[in-house]
Amino acid sequence: MGVIENTNLNSPTSTSQQTSSATSSPFLAACYGQAHERVPVWFMRQAGRSLPEYRMMRGTDSILTAIADADLATEITLQPVRRYGVDAAILFSDIMVPVYAVGFGVDIQAGVGPVIAQPFSDASDLERLRPLEPEEDIAYVLEAVKNLQAELVVPLIGFAGAPFTVASYLIEGGPTKTFQKTKSLMFANPELWTALMDRLCDITETFLKAQVEAGASALQLFDSWAGTLSPAAYEQLVFPYTKRIIASTDNLGVPRICHGVGTGELLALFAQTGAEVVGVDWRVRLDEARLRTGGKVSLQGNLDPAVCLAPWPVVAEQTRKVLAENGSNPGYIFNLGHGVLPPTDPAILKQIVDLVHAEGHCDAN
Amino acid sequence: MGVIENTNLNSPTSTSQQTSSATSSPFLAACYGQAHERVPVWFMRQAGRSLPEYRMMRGTDSILTAIADADLATEITLQPVRRYGVDAAILFSDIMVPVYAVGFGVDIQAGVGPVIAQPFSDASDLERLRPLEPEEDIAYVLEAVKNLQAELVVPLIGFAGAPFTVASYLIEGGPTKTFQKTKSLMFANPELWTALMDRLCDITETFLKAQVEAGASALQLFDSWAGTLSPAAYEQLVFPYTKRIIASTDNLGVPRICHGVGTGELLALFAQTGAEVVGVDWRVRLDEARLRTGGKVSLQGNLDPAVCLAPWPVVAEQTRKVLAENGSNPGYIFNLGHGVLPPTDPAILKQIVDLVHAEGHCDAN
Repeated sequence: MGVIENTNLNSPTSTSQQTSSATSSPFLAACYGQAHERVPVWFMRQAGRSLPEYRMMRGTDSILTAIADADLATEITLQPVRRYGVDAAILFSDIMVPVYAVGFGVDIQAGVGPVIAQPFSDASDLERLRPLEPEEDIAYVLEAVKNLQAELVVPLIGFAGAPFTVASYLIEGGPTKTFQKTKSLMFANPELWTALMDRLCDITETFLKAQVEAGASALQLFDSWAGTLSPAAYEQLVFPYTKRIIASTDNLGVPRICHGVGTGELLALFAQTGAEVVGVDWRVRLDEARLRTGGKVSLQGNLDPAVCLAPWPVVAEQTRKVLAENGSNPGYIFNLGHGVLPPTDPAILKQIVDLVHAEGHCDAN
Repeated sequence: MGVIENTNLNSPTSTSQQTSSATSSPFLAACYGQAHERVPVWFMRQAGRSLPEYRMMRGTDSILTAIADADLATEITLQPVRRYGVDAAILFSDIMVPVYAVGFGVDIQAGVGPVIAQPFSDASDLERLRPLEPEEDIAYVLEAVKNLQAELVVPLIGFAGAPFTVASYLIEGGPTKTFQKTKSLMFANPELWTALMDRLCDITETFLKAQVEAGASALQLFDSWAGTLSPAAYEQLVFPYTKRIIASTDNLGVPRICHGVGTGELLALFAQTGAEVVGVDWRVRLDEARLRTGGKVSLQGNLDPAVCLAPWPVVAEQTRKVLAENGSNPGYIFNLGHGVLPPTDPAILKQIVDLVHAEGHCDAN
C-alpha cells in the first residue's frame, strides 16, 4: 500500500497483530467485562473532524470520495491512534456508505450531512436497495480494513448505521429535527416499513460481516436517532431489526456495541439486543445506566462532547465525574456520549486519554 | 376591538368570564389535581401552524409582525378554541418576543426559526438585555390578553421561554443541534452565564407577571431544550433560575406549567421548581413520569406529535394508550409532547379532543 508515512508523533504501527488479542487489549477485555489493567478510551468521530493533520490531507472533495480512497482512509484512521494513544481505532467511514454503495443516490454535504436526491417514499423504492456485494460495492472499505489490520496494535472497530437511523435519512431526504416523514411511514404503513427494514438489515448484515472477515476486531451499530422514538414504538418497530442484525454477527467472534443519543428510556432494550456493550450519552448517569441495563452488559460513554470545548480544569472535573460514576466496573469503556465536535482542541482529547489511563480504576469482576 | 367575527364554527366566545374559574374549568382543576368532570385537553402550538383559517389570515409577514397586531393575535388564539373545543387557549406569541421587545435584534425566519443578527458573546452584550417595560415594550401582548380575557370561556395560558432555552438562541445565533456555543459559555465562563441568566430572569419574570395582570389564567414556562443538558449541568447551571422565575409568580394565583422535550432525566428536578404541572414528552411513559415526579405535581402530555400524521385508527390507539398510562389521576392534562407539526390535519386534532373528552377518566383524589 505504501502511503502510511512516519510522522513525528508516536507511531502505533507494528507488523504484529498479536497485541490486539482480547487478553492484551483493555478495550476488548472491557467489552466482555473481563479483568484488564486500565480503563480503555476512544472517541466517536476521533478519525477526522477536529484533527489538523486530517484537514491537511482531506482536501475539499466529498467525504465519500475520501472514504473511497483506501489508503487515505487508512491514514485518517491511524492519525488519532498516533496522536492520542487511544485503545481502539474506528474506521474512517460513514453510516451512509452501504446505501450509497448500492446506488441509492446519497451525497454527504459539508455542514449539512447526508442528502438524498430521491428520498424513499413508496414500495417502488425498495428495489433501489438491492443486496450489497462487498467485493464489488465496497472493495475500498475492505482494503482499508486489511491495511489497518496489518498496521494497528489496537483493535479496529468496524461499524454500520442501524436500520432506523439510516432509514430516517433515506425517507426525510436529509437530516431532520422532527423525523415526521419517517414516523409517518412507520405508523401509517407498517408493511412498507417492514419491507424497508428487511432490505436495510440484509445490507447491514453483509456490511458488518465483510468488515470482520477483512479484519475488524469489534463492531459498533449506530442507532444514533432511535432516542427520538417512544419506547413502545422503538420496541415494536425498530428493536426486532437491531436484534436480528446483532444475532447475524453472533458467530463472528467479535464484541458488538449498540449506541444512540437520547436513548435513556431505551437502555433496557438496547441491553437485550445481544450486544456486549451499550453506549450511554451524557443525559443518563453511568450508575443509573448500569441499573437500567441490568448489569449484564458493558457500558461505553458518557462525557458530553460539548464539555471538551471548555478549559482543561472543567474537562478534567467532568472526566473524573464520569470515572467516579462508573466506579471500578471492568465492563466499561470511556468515550464521549456522541461524536467529537469539529471545534474541539485535539490537545484536550489527548489530556483526557492520559487522565483516564492514569486515574481510571477497573477491578476484576 | 371589533375584529372578532363570528364564523360558522362553534363559537366559544362569551361576555362572561365566570366560567373560566377553577371550579368550572377542567383544565385549571387538573393543574391543581382537583376533582373535575372530564380530562382536559389542549395542544401546544394549537394557535397557528396547521390551521387553514390561520394561514389565510396570516399573510407572508414575519410572525413577529403578526404577534404585534393584537387583534390578529387575538383572532389566531381563538381559532383553535372554536374549531377543536379545547379546554384552554394559549396566546399566539413566541418565546423570543420579550428579548425582541427589548431590542436584542431577533428575527424569526419561516422554516428556520429565531435568527439573531449579533449573537450574545461577551459581557458587553449584557446591556442589550435591559429590563422589560411592559406598557412600552409589549403593549400589543397585553392588549391581546385583555381582548381574550373578555372573549374566552376557557382559561388563557400565558407563557415565556425559560432562560436556558432563550439563551441558546441568543448565543448560537439560531437553532442548533449541538448547543456547543451555549454549553461552552456555561462551562467556561460561569460568571458571565450567571449574569446572563439574571438578566433573562428579570425580563421573564416581568413578562409573565404582566400577562397574568392583563388576564392570563395560567402560565407555561418553555424550557424546550433543557433536555440537551446532563442532569448535573441542569441542576447546577439552569434549575436555580427556573426555580427563581416560578417563585416570582407564586403570589399571582395562577397554576404554572414547566415543559421541555427530552427531559426524562430532569423530571424530578422539574417537579421541584415549584410549578404545579410538569410537561412530559413521548419518550417517557406517563406512569413512569408519575414515579419520577414523586406524584406531587400534575402532568401534561404526552402523545408524539408525529403520531398525528398517521391515519385515525393509529392516532386513536395511541391516544387511548396515553390515557391508559395516566389511569384516572385527576392531575393530568392531555396534550402532545411537543408542538403541533405544520402538516397535521386539523380534523385529526378535533377527533383527539372528542376521544379524550369521551373516554378519559379522572377520579377525585
